[in-house]
Amino acid sequence: MYQITSIITRALEEDIGPRDITTSSIIPEGLKAKAAILAKEDFVLAGINVCSECFRTLDTEIKFKGKFKDGDSVKKGKVIAEIKGNAMSILMSERVALNFLQRLSGIATLTSTFVKEVKSLKVKIVDTRKTAPGLRSLEKYAVRVGGGFNHRFGLYDAVLIKDNHIALSGDIKKAVTKVKNGISHTAKIEVETKTLREVKEALQSGVDIIMLDNMSLETMTKAIKIIDGRALIEASGNINIRNGREVAKTGVDLISIGSLTHSAPAIDISLEIRPVKQ
Amino acid sequence: MYQITSIITRALEEDIGPRDITTSSIIPEGLKAKAAILAKEDFVLAGINVCSECFRTLDTEIKFKGKFKDGDSVKKGKVIAEIKGNAMSILMSERVALNFLQRLSGIATLTSTFVKEVKSLKVKIVDTRKTAPGLRSLEKYAVRVGGGFNHRFGLYDAVLIKDNHIALSGDIKKAVTKVKNGISHTAKIEVETKTLREVKEALQSGVDIIMLDNMSLETMTKAIKIIDGRALIEASGNINIRNGREVAKTGVDLISIGSLTHSAPAIDISLEIRPVKQ
Amino acid sequence: MYQITSIITRALEEDIGPRDITTSSIIPEGLKAKAAILAKEDFVLAGINVCSECFRTLDTEIKFKGKFKDGDSVKKGKVIAEIKGNAMSILMSERVALNFLQRLSGIATLTSTFVKEVKSLKVKIVDTRKTAPGLRSLEKYAVRVGGGFNHRFGLYDAVLIKDNHIALSGDIKKAVTKVKNGISHTAKIEVETKTLREVKEALQSGVDIIMLDNMSLETMTKAIKIIDGRALIEASGNINIRNGREVAKTGVDLISIGSLTHSAPAIDISLEIRPVKQ
Amino acid sequence: MYQITSIITRALEEDIGPRDITTSSIIPEGLKAKAAILAKEDFVLAGINVCSECFRTLDTEIKFKGKFKDGDSVKKGKVIAEIKGNAMSILMSERVALNFLQRLSGIATLTSTFVKEVKSLKVKIVDTRKTAPGLRSLEKYAVRVGGGFNHRFGLYDAVLIKDNHIALSGDIKKAVTKVKNGISHTAKIEVETKTLREVKEALQSGVDIIMLDNMSLETMTKAIKIIDGRALIEASGNINIRNGREVAKTGVDLISIGSLTHSAPAIDISLEIRPVKQ
Amino acid sequence: MYQITSIITRALEEDIGPRDITTSSIIPEGLKAKAAILAKEDFVLAGINVCSECFRTLDTEIKFKGKFKDGDSVKKGKVIAEIKGNAMSILMSERVALNFLQRLSGIATLTSTFVKEVKSLKVKIVDTRKTAPGLRSLEKYAVRVGGGFNHRFGLYDAVLIKDNHIALSGDIKKAVTKVKNGISHTAKIEVETKTLREVKEALQSGVDIIMLDNMSLETMTKAIKIIDGRALIEASGNINIRNGREVAKTGVDLISIGSLTHSAPAIDISLEIRPVKQ
Amino acid sequence: MYQITSIITRALEEDIGPRDITTSSIIPEGLKAKAAILAKEDFVLAGINVCSECFRTLDTEIKFKGKFKDGDSVKKGKVIAEIKGNAMSILMSERVALNFLQRLSGIATLTSTFVKEVKSLKVKIVDTRKTAPGLRSLEKYAVRVGGGFNHRFGLYDAVLIKDNHIALSGDIKKAVTKVKNGISHTAKIEVETKTLREVKEALQSGVDIIMLDNMSLETMTKAIKIIDGRALIEASGNINIRNGREVAKTGVDLISIGSLTHSAPAIDISLEIRPVKQ
Repeated sequence: MYQITSIITRALEEDIGPRDITTSSIIPEGLKAKAAILAKEDFVLAGINVCSECFRTLDTEIKFKGKFKDGDSVKKGKVIAEIKGNAMSILMSERVALNFLQRLSGIATLTSTFVKEVKSLKVKIVDTRKTAPGLRSLEKYAVRVGGGFNHRFGLYDAVLIKDNHIALSGDIKKAVTKVKNGISHTAKIEVETKTLREVKEALQSGVDIIMLDNMSLETMTKAIKIIDGRALIEASGNINIRNGREVAKTGVDLISIGSLTHSAPAIDISLEIRPVKQ
Repeated sequence: MYQITSIITRALEEDIGPRDITTSSIIPEGLKAKAAILAKEDFVLAGINVCSECFRTLDTEIKFKGKFKDGDSVKKGKVIAEIKGNAMSILMSERVALNFLQRLSGIATLTSTFVKEVKSLKVKIVDTRKTAPGLRSLEKYAVRVGGGFNHRFGLYDAVLIKDNHIALSGDIKKAVTKVKNGISHTAKIEVETKTLREVKEALQSGVDIIMLDNMSLETMTKAIKIIDGRALIEASGNINIRNGREVAKTGVDLISIGSLTHSAPAIDISLEIRPVKQ
Repeated sequence: MYQITSIITRALEEDIGPRDITTSSIIPEGLKAKAAILAKEDFVLAGINVCSECFRTLDTEIKFKGKFKDGDSVKKGKVIAEIKGNAMSILMSERVALNFLQRLSGIATLTSTFVKEVKSLKVKIVDTRKTAPGLRSLEKYAVRVGGGFNHRFGLYDAVLIKDNHIALSGDIKKAVTKVKNGISHTAKIEVETKTLREVKEALQSGVDIIMLDNMSLETMTKAIKIIDGRALIEASGNINIRNGREVAKTGVDLISIGSLTHSAPAIDISLEIRPVKQ
Repeated sequence: MYQITSIITRALEEDIGPRDITTSSIIPEGLKAKAAILAKEDFVLAGINVCSECFRTLDTEIKFKGKFKDGDSVKKGKVIAEIKGNAMSILMSERVALNFLQRLSGIATLTSTFVKEVKSLKVKIVDTRKTAPGLRSLEKYAVRVGGGFNHRFGLYDAVLIKDNHIALSGDIKKAVTKVKNGISHTAKIEVETKTLREVKEALQSGVDIIMLDNMSLETMTKAIKIIDGRALIEASGNINIRNGREVAKTGVDLISIGSLTHSAPAIDISLEIRPVKQ
Repeated sequence: MYQITSIITRALEEDIGPRDITTSSIIPEGLKAKAAILAKEDFVLAGINVCSECFRTLDTEIKFKGKFKDGDSVKKGKVIAEIKGNAMSILMSERVALNFLQRLSGIATLTSTFVKEVKSLKVKIVDTRKTAPGLRSLEKYAVRVGGGFNHRFGLYDAVLIKDNHIALSGDIKKAVTKVKNGISHTAKIEVETKTLREVKEALQSGVDIIMLDNMSLETMTKAIKIIDGRALIEASGNINIRNGREVAKTGVDLISIGSLTHSAPAIDISLEIRPVKQ
Repeated sequence: MYQITSIITRALEEDIGPRDITTSSIIPEGLKAKAAILAKEDFVLAGINVCSECFRTLDTEIKFKGKFKDGDSVKKGKVIAEIKGNAMSILMSERVALNFLQRLSGIATLTSTFVKEVKSLKVKIVDTRKTAPGLRSLEKYAVRVGGGFNHRFGLYDAVLIKDNHIALSGDIKKAVTKVKNGISHTAKIEVETKTLREVKEALQSGVDIIMLDNMSLETMTKAIKIIDGRALIEASGNINIRNGREVAKTGVDLISIGSLTHSAPAIDISLEIRPVKQ
């Protein structure tokens, strides 16, 4: 929670700055209010706790009651959460709270669309490191909420030997050998390949995972035959909602999709407030 | 620059964590390399300096040479920038640098599409506070690069009396009066209106800007006639690339569009590296 | 509140450092105490909540009961607040809490003196950006408590074209034109003028506010006649408690006074403690 | 220097926020300028390096050339420093740089007035912990620049047993005994006394320094006779420029004065800019 | 407490990073558990509150009940503390909480061994500045818990003129004179000496404390005779558990020992968990 | 480097605080000096760059020239590095720089002793998460310098199912199944086992690594036979320099040793300074 707190605090500072000049001028200090967060379209919810924390970081007295939980499908018009407490606090946190909720739900919703598309196939939809700077943990959480799986979190928790690494180290074999001498026994090794020749080289180097980058369906099918279960297979590059199922049907284990996080449209969500009789 | 620095540092920490286990195992410490940042589609560039700073925050020795500047239209296949320096440093900053560039260019490109759509009309395209938490300054900068204008930066630099404020304070007149007594003489006052009745009330209260929220083209036209130049007019709510020009033609001064920042798809940009003979 | 918290935390760290060697040696860990904060002179109170937060940031169990609220006139000898709780905590936060209270009350008191001086005139007393680095929000709050109004908070929330901007851009008209193309529609434009020629130029450029900088009463009067209600008028420069009312009588809308924040003497306030029978 | 840097960075963030909307709209990005910092009254300079760092924190390319050094007496009309570099950078750091310089010079000037007042007497003028929250190191530095000496920096670097400690621990002797058992051998012990009885008790407890708090000149003289060189003597409480020399003549070793830091008026200093032919 | 909080937060972030992938996969979110912290060897406890705060920083609902308090001797096999609360929270904070407890108890235990060794002699065992970067306050606290005393906390709270200072300033006398002119009246002055000639010089300069650095027992005895009570005497350099008592017997006032903090072996402590029937 | 910078800055702040009262009083501001860092015993060097950064963080003008590089064996009496620059800066960073160097070299030296002990055997010596809070990356780096390997960096980069996880989830199989559904495909799974029954259960669950915790040599040998190359094997618990080689001979792949980081004695290293003729 302490991690979310610092992200939320920074977001509140960014939005409120020294003072909410509208709210502090109009709203009496002690005024209590009720508010409802409303779905303006159908979507998969993610970030309800982050949203709650936005209000409660500004004002610990706020009562936030989620009517759905992360992962739920929410229909247009539904009340997502009810909030009760100081009116000024609610108004001052509203935008930040909704920004998180709209963004994370957007990611979960897009992910879930991909996941449904490959339903009944054994493939996993995974994310990438193409996330909004500073929000990676939250965005990767939203991917999981949407039914996807996470790829590595950063450069620190798994080895991915990319084309640029290979270009600088000569060949895949040399790169893999060096990695095996340098890393923890707990880290898996993945290699990015662009050709069947590279697939074979990776396989011979004894890697755990082979990424098939930007290959045609035909080449992928050949690659899968070559690998023959000796490594996990990840398809990557230009995979979208139209060709996702075709790629999945080749039999790859994983499909990684950058747009899950870098291009998911925000969900339309709003907040309505009314005073409380006291 | 100090502000960008802290955002970039946080993004690098988020991605690299304690150690890039791939790069530090494979790439020799002193190895020099050249790299090119490449456009994989047509777009409007934004963030070239932020991108440069990502590399240079990690390693001040890196030479970064932009081939375009922010606001330029870049064609698919073009080299956006050339980088020279320590190979490890380039590889470790690559993803973070591209994440900024892809996102900001995405916003500038989407903004510029809207701006072109309303070309020759006097209207300004403006952004909202619906930005990625922690990245607002940069995203609002990208809107300007794309030819748009900024709405207020936060709750602190302009008054916007929204429906929720009105609901809690009784009516527009009361809200405006309170605001005038509370704020600096340097701040303008904008009021959100949903009906022609509210437009009139706002006008009588002597506000500087009137927002027409989610009104039909017909109602907007009436509102503009009523206002008759006595306040700036901002159209807002469900305005997209298909109906933008129609809205603009009504004669509003400003069109605010949340999707500029909350739903702009990222631009496809990549980095290619090669060793340097020494 | 989260903003005050970080300022207070930094102040406590600055004062307490690794350990209060006096208190931790003398006072038993569980000892409870009562304390009273006392006025040693007449003044206008500002900062009672900040003061309370200083104690409660160190120790959430402290009970702090203000006997006055911000804006109240407090007479010498009065008890401003009563505190109850752990004796060590009270002693360790005392100096920091009083430093805030003495400084903010000093600003409110000086402001209120100016405000009284121009009583019954329509003019507003406003502050400047000449504040103690790191404490601007609090100091500007104290100005409001004292009956004054805030000028802009920083370089970000209003346009003020100063002599140095004019010197670099050629003339006022050019500067204003550029600003109008660059800024948000929500920001007002103010120009600093030193001569009647500049006043006219500013007026023709269509600015919202004209600052009359260091003008004689006579020149100010002419300027006001020239402006004739077409812009707000701010008098600035070497205005003090002796000449304030004369300036106000000219009919300016605003008088800005740097000394409100940069030279307000601190109020004499002390804290007295005694043990509690348990 | 790293400490000043964080204070300066915070001050720049506070003033500039997301963007200097005036300067960034008016001033061309590459424009070079020269500026002079000018004395508008006579004063003792303090903070010239802090001032320089303000400009250079924003823009490392700025050339700052001080014409005086800290401790110098500067006459009205003199150029304090010359600055050369990017015009935008100079304009954006101006206010913050001057705020530090005006405040620190104010403290040095006031201190030097007190120091001159007690000239030829052996007494030292010392400061207190009544400093602006967050700025203590700088303000205590300014006191030294003005010819004063520092009292302890915080609760951590010296023992000062105050009336409140004594009230809670029964008597001075008990308090001193406890302190001697708890602290480092490197810390001195000072006790605040209000009566001659307390002076004697402090002396018998073997303290290093005795503070005479709010005593009359007559009582002070008796106290000094009683102490007879067996402890350093500090006079404190309601000592001002009018009675300072009288107090000093009693023979006390130190006079501590809160107003040096909490009520020193700022010095009037300004910055003038002009473009550079290129 | 706010200081411990930031150290603990940093430690938790360092260990947990974006997500505890083991615990969050295996343990149901609402599961409650009980845990016991167990002594695997005999030791002197230090850090029980820090340990408690580790759990409670992650999750304020955790109940932590210490069975011993700092300074207690704990026997192998004993339960040090009982914890109750959310199972995930306990598992995620376990390692960090134990790391603090093992380290601080290691320091207290080693200190107490030295203290026992010199029992009945008037000498004090004191620490040095050779502490783990970032943990000095806690480590110096552990020294006090173990019966030792603190030397200065840093370069700011006491004067220690070391060989390097003397080398650069010519001689001890010059260095001491300069210091007396520069520092607060509240700071004591200590000088490091390596020869009897230096001891005499220090004594003549009127210092408060003389450090005998790396002297033989014989030379120390002579030095003590020369000093003859006119300054506190600190023995330093290569003093260990075997020669500590011999050094103490010479009559020095203080023995400073770097290994108390830089080389104290950690204590073996573990945590055992079990589910709670609900 | 940015990560080291923040650790170093914090350490410098901790040691220097508001002011080095000794150095700033004695040493003239512009004085230049040379210094040598000296080995007072034989050891394996680690942290030479961190040491250099300590000096250069305080003063970028300092010249630091390492005479050895990390991993080198340094003999007692050797000069480890030469430093040149401002005397005050050198004296103020000395202690912090040495604290890092002594600690990291201590860890590298202890690690290298273990590594030598198992020389010619295929086993790897690995560290644990029992590191000084806030210094993990540096301490794990020192282990690699000493010839050891890293275990996971934290709870985020590898799965380790410990006894407490098993106790709460029923059995190993259930825990492993849950983990496989929850984590990234890039993470390996390790299980802690205490009995041969658990070893078999882990093996059947399809884990990547099996930890043999606190087993006798005999049991370990049996476990290895059972596992028969189907998983990596890590021996853990009470392994020290005396029994390390015996454990290694059983054929385990990895031996993890907490004392590498939690109990490595610091290396004795000092700094000697002298003035430079100018």
